[in-house]
Amino acid sequence: MGSALHPDAAPLSFLLGTWAGEGHGEFPTIDSFDYTEEIRFWHVGKPFLAYAQRTWSTEDERPLHGESGYWRAIPRGRLEVVLAHPNGIVEVAEGTVEGTEIELASVTVARTGTAKEVTSLQRSLQVRGGTLLYDLHMAAVGHPLTKHLTAELRHASSG
Amino acid sequence: MGSALHPDAAPLSFLLGTWAGEGHGEFPTIDSFDYTEEIRFWHVGKPFLAYAQRTWSTEDERPLHGESGYWRAIPRGRLEVVLAHPNGIVEVAEGTVEGTEIELASVTVARTGTAKEVTSLQRSLQVRGGTLLYDLHMAAVGHPLTKHLTAELRHASSG
Repeated sequence: MGSALHPDAAPLSFLLGTWAGEGHGEFPTIDSFDYTEEIRFWHVGKPFLAYAQRTWSTEDERPLHGESGYWRAIPRGRLEVVLAHPNGIVEVAEGTVEGTEIELASVTVARTGTAKEVTSLQRSLQVRGGTLLYDLHMAAVGHPLTKHLTAELRHASSG
Repeated sequence: MGSALHPDAAPLSFLLGTWAGEGHGEFPTIDSFDYTEEIRFWHVGKPFLAYAQRTWSTEDERPLHGESGYWRAIPRGRLEVVLAHPNGIVEVAEGTVEGTEIELASVTVARTGTAKEVTSLQRSLQVRGGTLLYDLHMAAVGHPLTKHLTAELRHASSG
């Protein structure tokens, strides 16, 4: 990259780099499962961070989920996130960043004709001493917002 | 990656790899501009291609746009695409793939609170002898679907 971090993106700089770790998933309609995860945040000198995430089954290493998109720093501790999911979902989320804690709630979840009905997503994320913790609640297929994912990742590299 | 292409993604296999080239942008509300572009399509063994795109100003090489998301192959020559744009837009598009020609029209365009109002996107893409050509029409900020982008890229690598 080489470019300097855009000053507007400074409140998000604690996310930059590659994070690797383990998570646990559950939902009323599925068997719970464990997963391995890698998250990358990077920048190109503009007032957002690019984001890509992948998970694999801990049990048999098959690819599970992925997400990609952009985290946009907005004045006064606000944050906007736009994401695409390979299962045919797009997500617009808005929230707050306070220090190294982020709270996000979806304002729009839309989907392709063949995608599963996901209606709402809520994310909490924090970084503490080189560890990134998040949880995600999801409303989907008739179930209200319910705990779906929780994970703990370590800072694996700054690139 | 190492995994075999998912059979459902075979109709999209002509997109795989890295494409590099030049494009031209215009819209009634802006000065026209030329750009350099890189597009990457890759797969992880599941029935979609992952996609990431970046553009830079031809004039001064500053980063312009980017997109990331997933192209989902659907039976009977159908295609679903979910994309996030760093300017705060998400896009759900559906369309057709016939041979090496793709037509896509947005079914949903949603945006964050601070994003510019984009209401509709229409994409045509074709590959002919190692060249990828696309054009994109956009409806935005009160203007109906209008030609916005056209580009020509060469297949730069299969990775």
